[in-house]
Amino acid sequence: MVADSEYEYDLLVIGAGSGGVRAARTAAATGAKVAIVEDRYLGGTCVNVGCVPKKLYAYAAHFHDSFDDAAGFGWSLSEPATFDWATLRDNKTSEIKRLNGIYQRMLEGADVTLFNARAQLVDGHTAALKDENGVTHITANKILLATGGWPWVPDFPGNEHALDSNQVFDLEKFPKRFLVLGGGYIAVEFASIFNGLGSETHLIYRGDLFLKQFDHEVREFTRNEMDKKGVNLHFNANIERIEATGSSYNVHLTTGEVLEVDAVLAATGRVANVQGLGTEELGICLDGDGKIPVNERYETLVPSILALGDLTAGPELTPVALAEAMQLVDYHFKDKQPTPLDYATVPTAVFCHPNIGTVGLSEEGARQKLAKIRVYSTEFRALKHTLSGSQERTLMKLIVDDETDRVVGVHMVGDEAGEIMQGIAIAVRAGLTKRDFDLTIGIHPTGAEEFVTMRTVTRH
Amino acid sequence: MVADSEYEYDLLVIGAGSGGVRAARTAAATGAKVAIVEDRYLGGTCVNVGCVPKKLYAYAAHFHDSFDDAAGFGWSLSEPATFDWATLRDNKTSEIKRLNGIYQRMLEGADVTLFNARAQLVDGHTAALKDENGVTHITANKILLATGGWPWVPDFPGNEHALDSNQVFDLEKFPKRFLVLGGGYIAVEFASIFNGLGSETHLIYRGDLFLKQFDHEVREFTRNEMDKKGVNLHFNANIERIEATGSSYNVHLTTGEVLEVDAVLAATGRVANVQGLGTEELGICLDGDGKIPVNERYETLVPSILALGDLTAGPELTPVALAEAMQLVDYHFKDKQPTPLDYATVPTAVFCHPNIGTVGLSEEGARQKLAKIRVYSTEFRALKHTLSGSQERTLMKLIVDDETDRVVGVHMVGDEAGEIMQGIAIAVRAGLTKRDFDLTIGIHPTGAEEFVTMRTVTRH
Repeated sequence: MVADSEYEYDLLVIGAGSGGVRAARTAAATGAKVAIVEDRYLGGTCVNVGCVPKKLYAYAAHFHDSFDDAAGFGWSLSEPATFDWATLRDNKTSEIKRLNGIYQRMLEGADVTLFNARAQLVDGHTAALKDENGVTHITANKILLATGGWPWVPDFPGNEHALDSNQVFDLEKFPKRFLVLGGGYIAVEFASIFNGLGSETHLIYRGDLFLKQFDHEVREFTRNEMDKKGVNLHFNANIERIEATGSSYNVHLTTGEVLEVDAVLAATGRVANVQGLGTEELGICLDGDGKIPVNERYETLVPSILALGDLTAGPELTPVALAEAMQLVDYHFKDKQPTPLDYATVPTAVFCHPNIGTVGLSEEGARQKLAKIRVYSTEFRALKHTLSGSQERTLMKLIVDDETDRVVGVHMVGDEAGEIMQGIAIAVRAGLTKRDFDLTIGIHPTGAEEFVTMRTVTRH
Repeated sequence: MVADSEYEYDLLVIGAGSGGVRAARTAAATGAKVAIVEDRYLGGTCVNVGCVPKKLYAYAAHFHDSFDDAAGFGWSLSEPATFDWATLRDNKTSEIKRLNGIYQRMLEGADVTLFNARAQLVDGHTAALKDENGVTHITANKILLATGGWPWVPDFPGNEHALDSNQVFDLEKFPKRFLVLGGGYIAVEFASIFNGLGSETHLIYRGDLFLKQFDHEVREFTRNEMDKKGVNLHFNANIERIEATGSSYNVHLTTGEVLEVDAVLAATGRVANVQGLGTEELGICLDGDGKIPVNERYETLVPSILALGDLTAGPELTPVALAEAMQLVDYHFKDKQPTPLDYATVPTAVFCHPNIGTVGLSEEGARQKLAKIRVYSTEFRALKHTLSGSQERTLMKLIVDDETDRVVGVHMVGDEAGEIMQGIAIAVRAGLTKRDFDLTIGIHPTGAEEFVTMRTVTRH
């Protein structure tokens, strides 16, 4: 495909995050003339303030357990290990700068024109790009909105003292006492991270139990494990106000409790990052969930304007945005009809301690959807912890549609649950049965082998 | 099924390892009257001198890397961690005693009669059980041979100074200089273990390259990684003789080199453990590979005498013995025709550092067997090691049958390769295609996600 002479570009992508960059590169590889505009960092949330730094911090936090675990294996430290926040933070920042550079070179290598500017839609084929030198208008046959999400902090007195999940990565000083508000995966992950790094950690959540989109048994098990690891969990509680005392913060909870801490993170959700984008002016309004509605071709109400990733419905996950980008290019630049994404079998991991890995239906979801199910569930202390002395336990469960024998949901809380779930997800998406799982030989000794050796139904 | 009045038992199992115990318990659960005889430890090689202690030692060795890796994440130790062999060894021994007890209670709970004795076959339905009190004869309708394998040490001057893989677990003193002879997975694992625990480590192998049953690229990659970690690899070399000097050993190699070390492990293979079992006298001879031939019902030439596990052909793996045990019980005690085991898709892991995980065909095997293949291969530094500074790299590859698009082989060298491969093995055994892999969404950031995101053929 060559540039339509009417427009300067075949595709203008707004937002150089996971989805935007993938769409830009993949479209450019078809011969399309592509530009991408970004006013912040290359790589978006994932690379800069999401998956990547979060996982690096989770690794850092895990070392704490390693030092404790090592004693049972014969290792001893003359003094407890000490942690220096600035080293972690600055090493993280260097690594991200390196990744930003890789993204830049990938775009250059793909012949994608990069504009460091802020974009505003003018019409279905035009965007105004604003930078320090002024405003330029760019035209394109298609415009892709890929600006992702942005943290949202609720309104309460003193909320200006709360950090959002973008800011928490770069704290100047390590918080000896850390409080996180929220019950989603970001809240749970950061509670585990700061707890592991040595902070006295509090998690405040207004509901009965965090991680409400997950399997109930997984949620309860995770609560117990996090509690054992020393995270102070405050459910059915909210922040009433935050008072700055100069050196710290007094956080007043709706329960009457007051917690004195050194940092407060509000991990209270993310919203579509459309401020100033000009969508509303063109009639592209958000739906009830705050997302931009698109059809299966990723077209908004203005058909030449496309959108994907965290801006649109579906799980807010990098690999989903990547998959959508490739589908979008299939539709619009390769004239191909891709296999629709199966959002019901998108696997995911929460990198709390221990990790959660999950794919498919929760037990509750399966009961609602299916006439009859079988649940296989096991709970044990991992082999490693027989010597480490750690009381950490592992939960693994399979949900099977009794009518078809298909495995419709798989859940794990334990070491490397995210790594283990990836292969399982291939099986679940393809619709494999419990019999297929049973006929697979285990790899001994691993944790993962339990997924192919459970033979006794725990409940129907 | 009730006991045939002609015999005291429906089933007598000789050998209380993984396969024997599983067969005994599963048969007893059908109502059969079952006895098991064992003259050594309950749980066999796996529990006592195999999988379990080996994995515990591998965990111990991994901490060494953890301590090094931690610095880049902000952790510092005032002095290097020190390792005490006796703590590891004795904690391992306590854990194994605990597992032995669990096996005993499992057998008791299953109403299996346990004889602590050494068994010798008398005829197709009779075994002589010998213990300190004398000899008792036991009769059974079926006798199952499940005595497993036993380490074999080659003949060379001074070979009495070489430990076998049963003995190495209980070394009195930690060997500051350790040498292992062999190129199989036991050799490679122990080289990684002692290297990780701090020994100066040498691996001697007569061939060009170790792990000859594995994918060639995997073998080369593992060699490079072990070399980087400091294991001294001596290929195309063998031990000519070992001289004891009193405090250490001088190991003379066929290359002329002499290595002074504190312990020598001969990990030079295992043979069927049939000495004194009386098989030969009944006409049950070993095949060319030193295994007891059985038909698909696990019957030897004497049809009332069965055999399984490491005694028979097929991979010498605990999960294989377990699967065979369940099949055997299906055939002989449930009158069921089980789905034959697919030995070609038995997954396996080598717990060297980094781990190897593998299922299905090697690239070379696939080239021999299939008209046209596609290989997808990737090699990278894991996210963790961007901060740890470790130069460890990860290899992942998929072998696809170009005609059917089926994924016929999957290989990995890297962190948690064994855990990751388990789910992949479900997909490969079920015959899923590269398209099924491609349609699965990744879990980001993990290592495992590479298995579903490789899109570019590396070679045909």
